[in-house]
Amino acid sequence: MRAVDIIRKKRDGLALDAGEIEAFVRAATHGDWPDYQLSAMLMAIWLRGMDAGEITTLTNAMTRSGTVLDLSDLPGPKVDKHSTGGVGDSTSLVLAPLAAACGVIVPMMSGRGLGHTGGTLDKLEAIPGFRTNLSVEETKAALRATGAAMIGQTMDVAPADRKLYALRDVTATVESIPLIAASIMSKKLAEGIDALVLDVKCGNGAFMKKRDDAQLLAQTMIRAGQSNGVRTEALLTNMDAPLGFAVGNAIEVIECIEVLKGRGPADLEELSVLLAAHMVRLAGLAATDAEAEAKVRKALSSGQGLEKFRQIIAQQGGNPKIVDDYRLMPLAPKHLLLCSDRSGYVTKLAAEPIGRAAMLLGAGRQKAEDSVSPGVGVALRVNIGDPINAGETFAELFARDDADLATAADLVKSAFRVGDAKPELPRLVLEKVAI
Amino acid sequence: MRAVDIIRKKRDGLALDAGEIEAFVRAATHGDWPDYQLSAMLMAIWLRGMDAGEITTLTNAMTRSGTVLDLSDLPGPKVDKHSTGGVGDSTSLVLAPLAAACGVIVPMMSGRGLGHTGGTLDKLEAIPGFRTNLSVEETKAALRATGAAMIGQTMDVAPADRKLYALRDVTATVESIPLIAASIMSKKLAEGIDALVLDVKCGNGAFMKKRDDAQLLAQTMIRAGQSNGVRTEALLTNMDAPLGFAVGNAIEVIECIEVLKGRGPADLEELSVLLAAHMVRLAGLAATDAEAEAKVRKALSSGQGLEKFRQIIAQQGGNPKIVDDYRLMPLAPKHLLLCSDRSGYVTKLAAEPIGRAAMLLGAGRQKAEDSVSPGVGVALRVNIGDPINAGETFAELFARDDADLATAADLVKSAFRVGDAKPELPRLVLEKVAI
Repeated sequence: MRAVDIIRKKRDGLALDAGEIEAFVRAATHGDWPDYQLSAMLMAIWLRGMDAGEITTLTNAMTRSGTVLDLSDLPGPKVDKHSTGGVGDSTSLVLAPLAAACGVIVPMMSGRGLGHTGGTLDKLEAIPGFRTNLSVEETKAALRATGAAMIGQTMDVAPADRKLYALRDVTATVESIPLIAASIMSKKLAEGIDALVLDVKCGNGAFMKKRDDAQLLAQTMIRAGQSNGVRTEALLTNMDAPLGFAVGNAIEVIECIEVLKGRGPADLEELSVLLAAHMVRLAGLAATDAEAEAKVRKALSSGQGLEKFRQIIAQQGGNPKIVDDYRLMPLAPKHLLLCSDRSGYVTKLAAEPIGRAAMLLGAGRQKAEDSVSPGVGVALRVNIGDPINAGETFAELFARDDADLATAADLVKSAFRVGDAKPELPRLVLEKVAI
Repeated sequence: MRAVDIIRKKRDGLALDAGEIEAFVRAATHGDWPDYQLSAMLMAIWLRGMDAGEITTLTNAMTRSGTVLDLSDLPGPKVDKHSTGGVGDSTSLVLAPLAAACGVIVPMMSGRGLGHTGGTLDKLEAIPGFRTNLSVEETKAALRATGAAMIGQTMDVAPADRKLYALRDVTATVESIPLIAASIMSKKLAEGIDALVLDVKCGNGAFMKKRDDAQLLAQTMIRAGQSNGVRTEALLTNMDAPLGFAVGNAIEVIECIEVLKGRGPADLEELSVLLAAHMVRLAGLAATDAEAEAKVRKALSSGQGLEKFRQIIAQQGGNPKIVDDYRLMPLAPKHLLLCSDRSGYVTKLAAEPIGRAAMLLGAGRQKAEDSVSPGVGVALRVNIGDPINAGETFAELFARDDADLATAADLVKSAFRVGDAKPELPRLVLEKVAI
């Protein structure tokens, strides 16, 4: 089976069989094909697509290209959540403790932020001492001790995806639903989970701007998960505005602790509880959504979730005292307040420019090899629909210094609109995706 | 202008502007882009196509990526012919002497055979001593002395095409009309010619199997030539059956000499004269096709063409005595006669399997790096429509040894059909292509 023949078949719009897809993934893993053949194949996939069967096979082969966690010696249901990425999206830090407090085992492998969207690892690492690079044995010990492990992807997880992603990034073949779905799901399947909840973001701050595309991506990932033996459900959620008020790393951690204390932003709390409830039901720990949500709400209101987060932080080497003393979190010294120049109602808080502003300040990365600054970011003070007076602060910027501060401020200002009429409030959850 | 942005634009089906196409060609020439970006771009071009303006720009940029012959110090019209490749297609060896005998200057850069189609260089090099690797000065000296120079492409002609062709070959991006047209035309334009006659082959032994594709390729090349200042015309000719009887190297040279002696196969003579007449008219040496053809026929019947070929051979270091003594040509020692097992009329002589048989015997290359054997090949004894008796020889195989002889014989047999009724004879020239 020659590489050129497999490429030609996809180029001509035909479905590849399992042997052909496996040869492609083996080639990406072991270097059997030169990069120029891999990238020609990626472009052919981008332009010709893949059917559900091909995507399932591709996902499975990419998962098996590296280490798959074997958690069979841990009793209990293993369930994770994955978000396709948004601005201010820190639900993982809230729902992992809540789900674990309800008895779910949460082996959560996360990524770092890139572009205008943040990454869970960057947020966790804003906690002094917190280690995300646990070994397999440390991960299992953490899962046994606390029920949750929040770690990064090691080099041996889905190496085929690592190779293909690097090529896609430089050959304009990123935005392909089959390739995105296989990339995400191959890494999630490597966690050795029984079930998965997907939070597929849709809107100006999301990767998927259009509802149709987000639906198709969600359905594609559900099928890839189900076909590979992982119960998978997906919610489509709004990402036109940031989730919560904080967009950064340390400031998002603090916001999540506030949620766990019962006094965080309503949208972040609502979505975190909803996703955690899905995890609890999928784990078999509740028969209905209502029962699952009640369990999660009880974990929240009783303080068990907060206590669980404290345990997770301590287990992974972080300083649990930050939960009670935010001065222990690294916060940038320079603050800039942005004020509304007119009175009215907030009609727009566009996620994408706000995310870009936070990235410029150092909270995120323009390129994968950049490093991030834990203490910087953008803290909003208002929500869409809130009344605001001229001269009232709508956002606060946290910066290390003056570099890029003016540009970041302009971006946040451009994201903000005030109108005369109170706007219709956007729905947070657009739909539960059916296949 | 980042490579990934240019690739994305073509991926999305948009036309590239001149700066973008030139960046791509510069990248292929100088290695500014890694191969994986070039190949992603090639696949995007394969699947999305290019418009006439893009192809003209691509052709021009590829021509200018290397040396362009400057023949302005040679008085007289410079005209070449190019064939898209067929089986037994040795018209170049007949028409170059004929056109030169009529006063056309013919700076002919040719390629080597690949797959089932032969290459002019391989045929010429079957002549003992014949050198095709002339320097620029030697080429000009040859053009001054004889009016024709039959040479190979030096490394400095269209290096962008060399690079891109090597990548296309291994990434399933060969069969793209924009890429084929730009590849062919960029090399032809590097000859410094005023006009070009294209012989676009169509049929089972040709690269283009379908009439529509062949028409489109011809039109695309005509436009690319015209737009770059070279008067270009194209004939669509039949390649369902081999041209002439001989398929090989030395045996094709001998057949061409027979044509120049006025006793060669009718189809090879007819097409060579027709193409040469187009060259003569495009050179401005005749006002009409009829006048041009009369000149060429006179060069043929008077023996001037044969004499010119003798001069060309001598000028390029070959032994001109072969014209009079075919025993000086290298012919393989082993002969195998293939006989018809029934009587009737020859209804089929498929070019592709006959070409493959000749390649297997060593006349052509499976891979570009293979070497060829001058004396091997397949000599047919009949034409389509000829009556044949059971037991009568229809083909003779020339081989070095027994290796692949049985497979080659089977291929030639599979190409041959005898029926009861005399078939309609195929038309040699399908059309003069209009744009």
